[in-house]
Amino acid sequence: MAIKVMGQDTKGLNEECGIFGVWGVNEAADMTYYGLHALQHRGQEGAGIVGRQNGKLRQERGLGLLADVFGRGTALQNLAGSDAAVGHVRYATSGSNGIENIQPLLAHFSDSQIALAHNGNLTNQFTLRKQLETDGAIFQSSSDSEILLHLIRRSPAETMGAKIKDALNQVHGGFAFLLLTPDALYAALDPHGFRPFVIGQVDGGQYVVTSETAALNVVGAKFVRDVQPGELVTIDDAGMHIDHFTENTALQIDSMEYIYFARPDSDIYGVNVHTARKRMGATLAAEHAVDADIVVGVPNSSLSVASGYAEATGLPNEMGLVKNQYIARTFIEPTQDRRERAVRMKLSSVRGVVAGKRVVLVDDSIVRGTTSMYIVRMLREAGASEVHVRIGSPRFRFPSFYGIDMQTTEELMAANHSLAEMTAMIGADSLEFLSVDGLVDAIGLKTEQGTGLTTAYFDGHYPSPIYDYAPAMQPFVDAGVVDFMEEP
Amino acid sequence: MAIKVMGQDTKGLNEECGIFGVWGVNEAADMTYYGLHALQHRGQEGAGIVGRQNGKLRQERGLGLLADVFGRGTALQNLAGSDAAVGHVRYATSGSNGIENIQPLLAHFSDSQIALAHNGNLTNQFTLRKQLETDGAIFQSSSDSEILLHLIRRSPAETMGAKIKDALNQVHGGFAFLLLTPDALYAALDPHGFRPFVIGQVDGGQYVVTSETAALNVVGAKFVRDVQPGELVTIDDAGMHIDHFTENTALQIDSMEYIYFARPDSDIYGVNVHTARKRMGATLAAEHAVDADIVVGVPNSSLSVASGYAEATGLPNEMGLVKNQYIARTFIEPTQDRRERAVRMKLSSVRGVVAGKRVVLVDDSIVRGTTSMYIVRMLREAGASEVHVRIGSPRFRFPSFYGIDMQTTEELMAANHSLAEMTAMIGADSLEFLSVDGLVDAIGLKTEQGTGLTTAYFDGHYPSPIYDYAPAMQPFVDAGVVDFMEEP
Amino acid sequence: MAIKVMGQDTKGLNEECGIFGVWGVNEAADMTYYGLHALQHRGQEGAGIVGRQNGKLRQERGLGLLADVFGRGTALQNLAGSDAAVGHVRYATSGSNGIENIQPLLAHFSDSQIALAHNGNLTNQFTLRKQLETDGAIFQSSSDSEILLHLIRRSPAETMGAKIKDALNQVHGGFAFLLLTPDALYAALDPHGFRPFVIGQVDGGQYVVTSETAALNVVGAKFVRDVQPGELVTIDDAGMHIDHFTENTALQIDSMEYIYFARPDSDIYGVNVHTARKRMGATLAAEHAVDADIVVGVPNSSLSVASGYAEATGLPNEMGLVKNQYIARTFIEPTQDRRERAVRMKLSSVRGVVAGKRVVLVDDSIVRGTTSMYIVRMLREAGASEVHVRIGSPRFRFPSFYGIDMQTTEELMAANHSLAEMTAMIGADSLEFLSVDGLVDAIGLKTEQGTGLTTAYFDGHYPSPIYDYAPAMQPFVDAGVVDFMEEP
Amino acid sequence: MAIKVMGQDTKGLNEECGIFGVWGVNEAADMTYYGLHALQHRGQEGAGIVGRQNGKLRQERGLGLLADVFGRGTALQNLAGSDAAVGHVRYATSGSNGIENIQPLLAHFSDSQIALAHNGNLTNQFTLRKQLETDGAIFQSSSDSEILLHLIRRSPAETMGAKIKDALNQVHGGFAFLLLTPDALYAALDPHGFRPFVIGQVDGGQYVVTSETAALNVVGAKFVRDVQPGELVTIDDAGMHIDHFTENTALQIDSMEYIYFARPDSDIYGVNVHTARKRMGATLAAEHAVDADIVVGVPNSSLSVASGYAEATGLPNEMGLVKNQYIARTFIEPTQDRRERAVRMKLSSVRGVVAGKRVVLVDDSIVRGTTSMYIVRMLREAGASEVHVRIGSPRFRFPSFYGIDMQTTEELMAANHSLAEMTAMIGADSLEFLSVDGLVDAIGLKTEQGTGLTTAYFDGHYPSPIYDYAPAMQPFVDAGVVDFMEEP
Repeated sequence: MAIKVMGQDTKGLNEECGIFGVWGVNEAADMTYYGLHALQHRGQEGAGIVGRQNGKLRQERGLGLLADVFGRGTALQNLAGSDAAVGHVRYATSGSNGIENIQPLLAHFSDSQIALAHNGNLTNQFTLRKQLETDGAIFQSSSDSEILLHLIRRSPAETMGAKIKDALNQVHGGFAFLLLTPDALYAALDPHGFRPFVIGQVDGGQYVVTSETAALNVVGAKFVRDVQPGELVTIDDAGMHIDHFTENTALQIDSMEYIYFARPDSDIYGVNVHTARKRMGATLAAEHAVDADIVVGVPNSSLSVASGYAEATGLPNEMGLVKNQYIARTFIEPTQDRRERAVRMKLSSVRGVVAGKRVVLVDDSIVRGTTSMYIVRMLREAGASEVHVRIGSPRFRFPSFYGIDMQTTEELMAANHSLAEMTAMIGADSLEFLSVDGLVDAIGLKTEQGTGLTTAYFDGHYPSPIYDYAPAMQPFVDAGVVDFMEEP
Repeated sequence: MAIKVMGQDTKGLNEECGIFGVWGVNEAADMTYYGLHALQHRGQEGAGIVGRQNGKLRQERGLGLLADVFGRGTALQNLAGSDAAVGHVRYATSGSNGIENIQPLLAHFSDSQIALAHNGNLTNQFTLRKQLETDGAIFQSSSDSEILLHLIRRSPAETMGAKIKDALNQVHGGFAFLLLTPDALYAALDPHGFRPFVIGQVDGGQYVVTSETAALNVVGAKFVRDVQPGELVTIDDAGMHIDHFTENTALQIDSMEYIYFARPDSDIYGVNVHTARKRMGATLAAEHAVDADIVVGVPNSSLSVASGYAEATGLPNEMGLVKNQYIARTFIEPTQDRRERAVRMKLSSVRGVVAGKRVVLVDDSIVRGTTSMYIVRMLREAGASEVHVRIGSPRFRFPSFYGIDMQTTEELMAANHSLAEMTAMIGADSLEFLSVDGLVDAIGLKTEQGTGLTTAYFDGHYPSPIYDYAPAMQPFVDAGVVDFMEEP
Repeated sequence: MAIKVMGQDTKGLNEECGIFGVWGVNEAADMTYYGLHALQHRGQEGAGIVGRQNGKLRQERGLGLLADVFGRGTALQNLAGSDAAVGHVRYATSGSNGIENIQPLLAHFSDSQIALAHNGNLTNQFTLRKQLETDGAIFQSSSDSEILLHLIRRSPAETMGAKIKDALNQVHGGFAFLLLTPDALYAALDPHGFRPFVIGQVDGGQYVVTSETAALNVVGAKFVRDVQPGELVTIDDAGMHIDHFTENTALQIDSMEYIYFARPDSDIYGVNVHTARKRMGATLAAEHAVDADIVVGVPNSSLSVASGYAEATGLPNEMGLVKNQYIARTFIEPTQDRRERAVRMKLSSVRGVVAGKRVVLVDDSIVRGTTSMYIVRMLREAGASEVHVRIGSPRFRFPSFYGIDMQTTEELMAANHSLAEMTAMIGADSLEFLSVDGLVDAIGLKTEQGTGLTTAYFDGHYPSPIYDYAPAMQPFVDAGVVDFMEEP
Repeated sequence: MAIKVMGQDTKGLNEECGIFGVWGVNEAADMTYYGLHALQHRGQEGAGIVGRQNGKLRQERGLGLLADVFGRGTALQNLAGSDAAVGHVRYATSGSNGIENIQPLLAHFSDSQIALAHNGNLTNQFTLRKQLETDGAIFQSSSDSEILLHLIRRSPAETMGAKIKDALNQVHGGFAFLLLTPDALYAALDPHGFRPFVIGQVDGGQYVVTSETAALNVVGAKFVRDVQPGELVTIDDAGMHIDHFTENTALQIDSMEYIYFARPDSDIYGVNVHTARKRMGATLAAEHAVDADIVVGVPNSSLSVASGYAEATGLPNEMGLVKNQYIARTFIEPTQDRRERAVRMKLSSVRGVVAGKRVVLVDDSIVRGTTSMYIVRMLREAGASEVHVRIGSPRFRFPSFYGIDMQTTEELMAANHSLAEMTAMIGADSLEFLSVDGLVDAIGLKTEQGTGLTTAYFDGHYPSPIYDYAPAMQPFVDAGVVDFMEEP
């Protein structure tokens, strides 16, 4: 039973954004550029920075990698002298790849300006947009993020802070928002804390708010605290002020951040991502041991989990696969033949390492399964006598609605095939996945309220209603494989 | 007494737009490209086309000349298969040179789309914008044109046609609007008909609406009629339907269109522009004869008026100045020294023609006067014994508010200096201007209601209130040199 | 009897170069940029400048218009501080459109450098190249100009000046050469002076050498003298030194320079080009009068000749055709249909001027005839009752070998059709051409040795042997319509 | 005692090229693109491909990464239909960064064409170039590679093969050459085999010759054999023919290929690079054990050696440093402050891994030492209690002349400082290097003639005379630390 939500095609498993904001430093746009550089893995199809120059906001943005947009030409020079800035790197879904969707969005008013950078996905966006349009709103982007600007602008509340709170209480889903006005920088996180969001402080005491601690390191900022679910943080010349827009919160951060998205050197709610992945590998080894000669991780994302697996089993952890460092741009078009070549341009097997060996191939996840199939084939061509695939996360069976570009199950291998079928399809001698409990234990984030994690991809237990997406998921609910918690 | 309106710097005398729309043809975007090509003189700093592909509107736009935006790359290919389109070439005033102001603007709704191309200037734009913002509107551009989209969207009227009429009755000033929805192409002209706007028909019977008849010729369309002041024209699969959004109209087209802006091969309200200019030259000769040997026009804009002057006087019309064909791009920065070089890169005097001659130098207008100064100097360097400057229009003394980028008198030579001063400043042996009556007669558009022309630049009689600009003009009103008619 | 020489396709009638050199001024590359700007009409497909910075030569070049190569980016900044420079604008024939052919060429030696800019065509290039290759020379360009570098380098003479003279005596055909070394600027003109070449002097006394006087005006240089056939001019810190590489000279400048290529504001051997064209028009009127109402010239190249024709006949000279100012770039591909559109994008007829009139359409030349056909059609569509075509030069029947891109007669209308056929093909009521004698008289350059002009295109009398091209022309010689003079 | 050779500044340790050639396949340029993609690590500042289309060679090349040159635009389309091709990726040294130096070079002759791609450095290039120039040769590039073209062209031998052999016997130094003519593909390797060079075969039997086996894998070619020192391989429609241009050979491949340059998945003379590096790590552990908690390799180049070190010691191999995947382009300028930031943008330490740990930091080599200093500092900031640096190669003390961009010892830390000084400068608790014997053993290439390796960087024993570079090295020879073997 495959679903396709809202008619959107999807291309893979991609996080939709990284965001970075800073207030009160010299050359704030430069710092934002360096911070976004550390977040480039969270979005490669567009980048933008809005800086505050002489009290006014100026926007620079473009399609492509950060370095395409800001590493050449005058975009960064145009923001010289900024003393506050917000930035964004974006993964644009197909069909909405126009420059108008590249964030931060910037709205101009006769009397003010407001810039917005958003990481996440609003589950009631279609309802809100229709309602706003009925009330006369004109949208220039097809991005759900623009909705918040309209809600803020239309709020009857008196102060900007009150307007923002008002607007935040109308949106649902996953969101880490950064808002910049000429007067302040605002940061807000959804009530479940679906996305990571951290506060740092540079030497001079100025505050930085960004998606991952890795971005703090690059700009020389010290970690202060995670933004907590439901918080609205205001940073201005008077310093940092922490408030809540709602008290009904329950931390359930997206487990995919630990499994795949976040950088290994980032810490999320106090848990180092690399270390969590090593534990996933160790737990996986405990759950699914196999008689083999060497462990080979798929570079670079699965090296941590492979290392955990190898250590737990005592097997040597070998570089049986090598990744080409220069893969940013290829002109590959997506035919089957070319997709295989794309994998071969990216990864090579090392005959001297795997020939004659029984290999445990460790990967972090299986989405479509085609890449796994090509890698298994490459290892066999290089002489591996057996290939046992071990995956550091459970079977990916249900769509995401909180900020990952995977809103359909059509192409999810695990949603449509049994374990035996999958094993055959990728050509492995055996295939096993980490259990959901194993994942939760390995991350180790448990709170009094529960796991602290969203694991709905794997078990179908969504931590909140999904609003506009609910009708599309009804067949799964009817089949008894999916359920939704109430809002806290 | 110099004024500067709304804090805007201005750079010269520039028309702000050319527009082109077509419904129901094959490859409508290609035709629009060719049509805009004939209108490139109306705006060189940005260009855009919105095409209807499979019932949906798609926008392509960019900074620079039409050929920069559409002559390379994939922009025009992206619009392949369009069966309706609107296009725009823009002169962007300094300070608002972002891509977001390049038209046609395109607004997306959950249930529809609307594209807008505007030639003109709305005199109550600041009031309307503030009011709309107070009501929650978010503007993405700083262009006044976006206001109409908000007014249409917020209109309580039932049909699109009624919403547009409603909106048109709220805006004042000069406007030729083209609106494209998936269902129809709409064209509307302000009640004074400040800007030229014509309807043509191609061989298959499909309609084209555009700024000048010159654009009709290029796409092989036959002239049908001028859009009349106050009209709303609707073109869809059922054909053309002509309606009025107001009956209170009075034709007063901007006389600068005849003097300077429009192409000589265009006809406006039945008057050929080249022919009108020849009559200006002839009338100028009658008003201000001078004993001389040859007539030299400033290429290319003043060749018609020079030819009229020469014919009327019997003096030989000589090519004493040559214009470089390749002036599109220079890297000149605006220092005094470089400004003179810019003129010298553009124009050269021909010694063999002017040496030892008493020259009547004919130009169409004097704005700042610096170019005239350089040209007179060049003619003297080439050996002219006398240089008598004759200008085919009256002294330009007051600002424009209906769609020309000259909203201040600070830099207008004639607003700040006497005729004797001007003569000395440009270094001429004599300097004379066409009279306002001479201009009106030469164009010959007189209607029962009056001249059919706006000549406020020259005589201070504005044919309508100027709304948001009124406070800035109050000193002139107080001084008794400017007055405003009521709306018709 | 049509010939096609050396297998080259040709596209039209295009001059192959403009060149500019200067020694001893501040910012010599900037001055060269301005000078080349005035020569852009002589070549639009590539541009380059070599500047001397701190005693070393640096090259910047690129494809496209001068402003594409130097008006953006850093190319001109890279040459900042140059105190001598040579520049080149090029018309690249198809098949050799690579960057390696863009001049000035620059050769590096362990102990020196030499840059070369060439306007013209070497008639013994194939023989020389083959011989040089046999002797081990490696060519990086397919340009004939590179041959001179090899000849200079291989000369056994002692000094650079002697080497250059030696090389110049080995090449035949049309050439104006500029050579720049770290020590001097050299200028040389072929023994017939086929191409124009002038020396000017700026205020500080420094010398400029360039293709046309128009380029002198733009950089503020005074005309000093024409380079004479057979001269080698050396300019260095000691001033200018004029020498001859041969005494066997006979001025026979290409008449096409007066007819079409040169700018009207340029003087060539003391004759102003515009004035010469006016005389061509007057002579044409005397030779081929016709009963008509108005004269219409094809803008911009034929306006001078039309003015001469009109003055001589007393007919009014009217602007019946208007040229679009923005034609630099179109994305037109060369199908018949699109070629007509290209003409329509470039030129428009003015109905108000030509309707009901008997028109004398004056053009400077007819090459293929297709443009003439489209223009006649446009005038008739605009209501002209009769169209009489008068051409300011004789019938173009034979190819050029001295520096114009027309080395075949295949596409030359006059080479393949009678006057009656041509009249019918272009759809004119009548068609007449200026006689060769009329042309010679109108230019008025006669010397003791003869006309001072090359008119071989029209009469088949080539002023020199054509060496490598001779075999291809043999059928014409056999037919008795073409002959070649011996070298002087 | 630091030397600087031939006035060239150097920037780091960079291999100068990767080359790829193929004969007789469909879309040979596409295959070359894929092959070069696998060699991008060997040169990132320029790329080019020459393809044979319809029997003629066409060149496309540009500055930047392969994907910049061929992944966009039309460069690869321009080579469509090629049935043979050679390609090149280049590391351009500063001062010679012009497009004219980007290879393959292509020379045109009246009767033929020849393209050349070169990996290496010719030690008698200055002498040869001067001699050729004296004989009239003109060089268009400043690259030493062009010399071979001139030598071939000037050879009195009869056949192309004989000419090439003749030329190859005149050049000295390191070279793997690919030459393409319309008739054949030639591959030649210098008598010491300084650079890796391998032959592969695709399914249809056609031959590929390239720098590394990694490139064979990507294009689906099977490894056939290494090109042997002194060989000239000819590939044409008749198949492959192997010949020698000299019998005086002695394999001494550059050890840096195993240490740093080559990809881990490549095999060189039968030795897998990753496996060799693991052995270097194991040997290093045996030579320089230390009491520690974890091993951390510098990603990505040192992961193999770190893994060998960890395995040998039984210490856990941890991901204490993470490399940003998106480092291709930064706009960093080389100030000290920015250099540190550049390292921080590229590498991050993982606090959760290193905090409180005694770390063995394993790197492959130390050139300047600044990167090591920053990394040690980062590890300490992340809480490492001790940092012991272990380097998988000996101290880098002497320059290279066979194809690596390090021809000076000025910036080589080990050339100018004692081990104790180096330890202090990088801030490590201890610092040790692999011995030369340990390196030779770990690679394990020993032949009857010797080590099969060039280790001159480390021990000063150069395997050949260095010709034009000899004078600069004389002080080292005098000091008794450097010596040169005779040619074999």
